[in-house]
Amino acid sequence: MSNQGVLRPGHVIIRVLDIHEAKDYYVNVLGLIETAQDANGKVYLKAWDEHDHHSIVLQEADEPGIEVMAFKVSDEATLKRLANEIENFGIKTELFAANTHLATGKRVRFTAPTGHVFELYSEKELVGNGMPVVNPGVKAPNLKGIHPNNFDHCALIGDDVEGSYKLFVNVLGFQLAERVIAGDNMIAAFLSCSNKPHDVAFIHAPVKGKLHHLSFAVDSWAHVLNAADKIAENEVPHEIGPTRHGITRGETIYFFDPSGNRNEIFSGGYLWYPDRPILTWTVDELPKALFFHERKLNETFLSVMT
Amino acid sequence: MSNQGVLRPGHVIIRVLDIHEAKDYYVNVLGLIETAQDANGKVYLKAWDEHDHHSIVLQEADEPGIEVMAFKVSDEATLKRLANEIENFGIKTELFAANTHLATGKRVRFTAPTGHVFELYSEKELVGNGMPVVNPGVKAPNLKGIHPNNFDHCALIGDDVEGSYKLFVNVLGFQLAERVIAGDNMIAAFLSCSNKPHDVAFIHAPVKGKLHHLSFAVDSWAHVLNAADKIAENEVPHEIGPTRHGITRGETIYFFDPSGNRNEIFSGGYLWYPDRPILTWTVDELPKALFFHERKLNETFLSVMT
Amino acid sequence: MSNQGVLRPGHVIIRVLDIHEAKDYYVNVLGLIETAQDANGKVYLKAWDEHDHHSIVLQEADEPGIEVMAFKVSDEATLKRLANEIENFGIKTELFAANTHLATGKRVRFTAPTGHVFELYSEKELVGNGMPVVNPGVKAPNLKGIHPNNFDHCALIGDDVEGSYKLFVNVLGFQLAERVIAGDNMIAAFLSCSNKPHDVAFIHAPVKGKLHHLSFAVDSWAHVLNAADKIAENEVPHEIGPTRHGITRGETIYFFDPSGNRNEIFSGGYLWYPDRPILTWTVDELPKALFFHERKLNETFLSVMT
Amino acid sequence: MSNQGVLRPGHVIIRVLDIHEAKDYYVNVLGLIETAQDANGKVYLKAWDEHDHHSIVLQEADEPGIEVMAFKVSDEATLKRLANEIENFGIKTELFAANTHLATGKRVRFTAPTGHVFELYSEKELVGNGMPVVNPGVKAPNLKGIHPNNFDHCALIGDDVEGSYKLFVNVLGFQLAERVIAGDNMIAAFLSCSNKPHDVAFIHAPVKGKLHHLSFAVDSWAHVLNAADKIAENEVPHEIGPTRHGITRGETIYFFDPSGNRNEIFSGGYLWYPDRPILTWTVDELPKALFFHERKLNETFLSVMT
Repeated sequence: MSNQGVLRPGHVIIRVLDIHEAKDYYVNVLGLIETAQDANGKVYLKAWDEHDHHSIVLQEADEPGIEVMAFKVSDEATLKRLANEIENFGIKTELFAANTHLATGKRVRFTAPTGHVFELYSEKELVGNGMPVVNPGVKAPNLKGIHPNNFDHCALIGDDVEGSYKLFVNVLGFQLAERVIAGDNMIAAFLSCSNKPHDVAFIHAPVKGKLHHLSFAVDSWAHVLNAADKIAENEVPHEIGPTRHGITRGETIYFFDPSGNRNEIFSGGYLWYPDRPILTWTVDELPKALFFHERKLNETFLSVMT
Repeated sequence: MSNQGVLRPGHVIIRVLDIHEAKDYYVNVLGLIETAQDANGKVYLKAWDEHDHHSIVLQEADEPGIEVMAFKVSDEATLKRLANEIENFGIKTELFAANTHLATGKRVRFTAPTGHVFELYSEKELVGNGMPVVNPGVKAPNLKGIHPNNFDHCALIGDDVEGSYKLFVNVLGFQLAERVIAGDNMIAAFLSCSNKPHDVAFIHAPVKGKLHHLSFAVDSWAHVLNAADKIAENEVPHEIGPTRHGITRGETIYFFDPSGNRNEIFSGGYLWYPDRPILTWTVDELPKALFFHERKLNETFLSVMT
Repeated sequence: MSNQGVLRPGHVIIRVLDIHEAKDYYVNVLGLIETAQDANGKVYLKAWDEHDHHSIVLQEADEPGIEVMAFKVSDEATLKRLANEIENFGIKTELFAANTHLATGKRVRFTAPTGHVFELYSEKELVGNGMPVVNPGVKAPNLKGIHPNNFDHCALIGDDVEGSYKLFVNVLGFQLAERVIAGDNMIAAFLSCSNKPHDVAFIHAPVKGKLHHLSFAVDSWAHVLNAADKIAENEVPHEIGPTRHGITRGETIYFFDPSGNRNEIFSGGYLWYPDRPILTWTVDELPKALFFHERKLNETFLSVMT
Repeated sequence: MSNQGVLRPGHVIIRVLDIHEAKDYYVNVLGLIETAQDANGKVYLKAWDEHDHHSIVLQEADEPGIEVMAFKVSDEATLKRLANEIENFGIKTELFAANTHLATGKRVRFTAPTGHVFELYSEKELVGNGMPVVNPGVKAPNLKGIHPNNFDHCALIGDDVEGSYKLFVNVLGFQLAERVIAGDNMIAAFLSCSNKPHDVAFIHAPVKGKLHHLSFAVDSWAHVLNAADKIAENEVPHEIGPTRHGITRGETIYFFDPSGNRNEIFSGGYLWYPDRPILTWTVDELPKALFFHERKLNETFLSVMT
């Protein structure tokens, strides 16, 4: 595929209740790498196999949740083009100068119909993945905790799934890989801008701008077990898993950061291509769509959000 | 990423010495699914999780090897555009009408500087992956043998790696993910048109149009073990593995089909993005680049080709 | 260790509500191999890597549950010695002639303080594991379903855990590997007659002769995933897992046969030796002892029995 | 099984050329835990999940190899009984007082027909596995390198395999699980004193007292991959693997310590019982027996010994 468009989820800014506690968790248990702390106390983190400066930013706040989800686009021309197209779609955009967000170029900010604040940018400082680019190895040394390879996607909750879906597909060039329908309504949309089965998902609830979960990728089911053991050893609140999703087929475990933001570690899932058929799950099959092994809903998965 | 361009390796036509023996191997041991046999005796096969009509075509011939590698492009406009650009690059193209290759639309054929015949097409009949598109499961029933998820890539051998590299990068929109250099010469190029670390690789030898291997993807290292056990149980000639590549980090095993064409089963590898640094291996580190665990070359891997 | 004593769980007779439905499940989903059906309609099954004639016997009845758990002992002298020692311990034994249970030698029957009927025998017809004993392979061909390697253990529920514990340790030569205590009371005892962390477990409830679960062993966590996928594909009622036990460290999933008898597929666990320290779990840590990842009890695990 | 007899391989004393280099390797790469260094410079190590004081002792010497392999027996009465029976078998024994080997009780030493020095002992100081015995976790914290669970077995090379076999089976109570025959000669014997498919193996060559390899156990094939990656990252000399053995079915990788002593990391293998049929491999099938995937011998495996 050519490189004109949105490349990937680039970073999220997450609201945490206690920055010290959050940093300890994300560095020592989840195993992300701290790359900076700014004058306002925000902590910048990356997963080990990412080359960009950061993918997770922790920001102390009175309530947990997601402040911004930002996507990296292929180049500055694309950034401009997409800003125009978002405006043409009827959504206001705001332009921020380079370095008004640490280590990052110009940013275009907008709010999607589900109430989530998104940003696009085309440049971020490269810090590398801890291995040389000439004769590298296969894993960086001295990793801690779960150390997923990369930040993978967010699932976001809001009232106008159809609206955000249209924005992402018609304007931002995402494709719908899977969806959940209740009668004529799409109550969840799994959207890809890559060969991954999703880069962002929108889930319906009568709220605005809420976070369902942040997801991090590991190599395999064996690494999901390792993650499960580590969250248990560290007394991290567990929600569900290890299990498999029907949607995306991913192997997964869910748990909560110290502020109550839901995290996922997952592996697997199929290779998405834009000409692959869209998969549809009907709401009566939602239990299987979510938790393929359990085939029943749990108490919290559809109700707890931040 | 937007969908303008080459999507993926779509199919390869493989020359086999005995079509019955080959079919038995590819269906019962490798576990591909036969979708058709044409009037000329060619056998059409797909991996279970592919939706397109076929990805491997077996054609009886006096010598093994690869007849054609074909890529699916996003749409007909792209097909025309790329045909023009290939001609502009100085390489002749030939246009074939729809259905002159079974279940496939118009095709553009050209020969790369390494002597390999490639085709582009934008349409192929969909046959599905054996599961419904509404409330699907996670795996098709009644699979046999190794049953990889999908055909993944080819490694091809020829004399003008630099030439084919330029064609694929400058014209077809591929990116260079990794390369091996000997002094100033690029002796191997691993090229991606996706988020996979390679969709095609070119390896230098003073020949034209040769095949190093066809590769099929499985979910994980546990499935590589299963493949290894199955090739042993079926007395399939083994070359090397299970092991890990330095290049791409993939977990891998190599073996040969009954005609001597090299097959690979692999899993893993990192997520490729066009802004990820190109990795370079120097020829003195080739043993590690190829076989990360063994760190030594074997007798056949660089000499046997079809 | 010398071979004087109880070798292993040899077979269990399980009560099922519908023999046809039960057989279909145990053969096609669980993947056991049918070796015989007797004149009374009882179905005899073995796991693929067992050499003995059977390890599971299905017997139609009005209520589910366990009829008999039988242990193979090393030889006939041991059988006689243990029968005497059981009598000396104050428990009556009953001797059955060879072949009064299909393909099995003389049997000594007794009822343990928890109300479970046990048998000992020293001979059973060998049918092999589907591979030759000269130049065997590593796996029998044509296996179906989950196909665990072997029947591994039972967990049994009854009122006098202390009593059955004493019988098994002081008379039958088992060792206590782990236990759960509530104050001064041992409410669960995990007993080994091998290098496995348990061959039988007793769990307290104010009942007699009840079954908690039958457990079957697979090679690894990857096979537990495969089992989980297969129980989902076959709509087998799921209880909990994939997860890890704190007790024994085993990787596990629980589900129910069509009659409601609980089955487990598990892998892993440490190597037990008689000089290894006994591990004790206090009842307040029971959630972690049972489900190391979840660290909470579910609704059914401690209440549903057959 | 009752506990009268040989329990397990307790420790080996390994000759290394440079104690500092050896200690660095066994602690930081293999991931054993140092428990003591004695006045003579010997280093005592244990695998993390062993409770005994040590299982590997490093002793500086001019040549690599194995000095002693010691088995733990169930109690002092067994120690005396076995000493007598060894003498009756016609082999001299030597008795050493408690604590003449660090942290270890009385020892009985003898030399087997293959020229290997063995010892038996019934007592060794317990140091635990790094977790409490009340409400333990599932893994000790702060482990390094490969950190196998336990030392598992040795394969030893000598001229009189039949002689050592008879000693181990007729006197020490081991069972023959598998063997390789060349015509009427048993050229390799795999002997178990447990439910593991081997605790010691004897392989024929016209030498006395040589070491083929020391083997350490990990949980699964996923951990064998981790071991393979770590030996590569640390530039440890690799021999073969990851692969599977035909003999024992174990998943395996072989490599060499800095002195040239061969090490193995393995997982899997079936559950051995004394009534399981002995498996026989004929010498023409030796390639498959050794390396089930490769099905060919390599240059070093049958020739390099220390």
